Amino acid sequence: MTRTSLKDTNCSWAQGAEAIGDKWTILILRDALRGVNTFSGFAKGIGVSKKVLSQRLDHLHSSGLLAKEPTEAGSSRMTYQLTDKGLALFPVMVALGQWADRWVYGDGNQPMIPVDRRTRQPLDEVVITSEGRGPLTSSDVTLLRNDEQVLARD
Amino acid sequence: MTRTSLKDTNCSWAQGAEAIGDKWTILILRDALRGVNTFSGFAKGIGVSKKVLSQRLDHLHSSGLLAKEPTEAGSSRMTYQLTDKGLALFPVMVALGQWADRWVYGDGNQPMIPVDRRTRQPLDEVVITSEGRGPLTSSDVTLLRNDEQVLARD
Repeated sequence: MTRTSLKDTNCSWAQGAEAIGDKWTILILRDALRGVNTFSGFAKGIGVSKKVLSQRLDHLHSSGLLAKEPTEAGSSRMTYQLTDKGLALFPVMVALGQWADRWVYGDGNQPMIPVDRRTRQPLDEVVITSEGRGPLTSSDVTLLRNDEQVLARD
Repeated sequence: MTRTSLKDTNCSWAQGAEAIGDKWTILILRDALRGVNTFSGFAKGIGVSKKVLSQRLDHLHSSGLLAKEPTEAGSSRMTYQLTDKGLALFPVMVALGQWADRWVYGDGNQPMIPVDRRTRQPLDEVVITSEGRGPLTSSDVTLLRNDEQVLARD
């Protein structure tokens, strides 16, 4: 059996992939996290066709990541805002940017540097820890099934 | 101008999106991080058509995230292994899974629980920090241009 939607797949990564597993969606999230909130703002920042941008904004809206309301009462122009569910993707986006900084551009060559707005210091590298142990790699981690707490694979 | 590829876009998130901004690619990474290393293994775990799976494996290979070699000398069957560049996406994948655990399933209802293989303790929540400050949200962070160290937006 083959499939095209992951909506009904009982897996956190499938649900994550269904929500943001699209390159234009990732760029919309990037811009929304920086405060872009209009269709024309997204169009300018991303450079994709209006048709594709509309589809992706609709998907983000129907997934509950992006809220929209008329810019003014009665207006057909919309203002977009990330919901709490959308804002919660911030760590994913930081980790993805750090990955590209390191593995695509190389340390020191990244185009932009995310910093703490107050201190102007760079963000720490995202690392995976457990009860103070870490950084953990994928080989340090295994998955337990939540329903039985048995080992899925070891 | 509209476009379909982000390869030449000078932005870390565009590069990240070009590499993994596809739902099937995210599922391949999920399975590869768990040790799946054959075409049939990916096909079974993901349930997508062989054509799409082939395309996505080729993309991961050409992007340098996945290495492949004949399973046996002279064999046309391939064994796939994440490169260091591919393995380095582990924090992105953990953060994405945690997002879905919390915002799609709700705390305690996630299907699988990633744990430290040695201690059996769950992973800590991925948080964004800077010099000990945090967790930081998107509104705490701004971007500096690397070439000038000037503020891009504030």
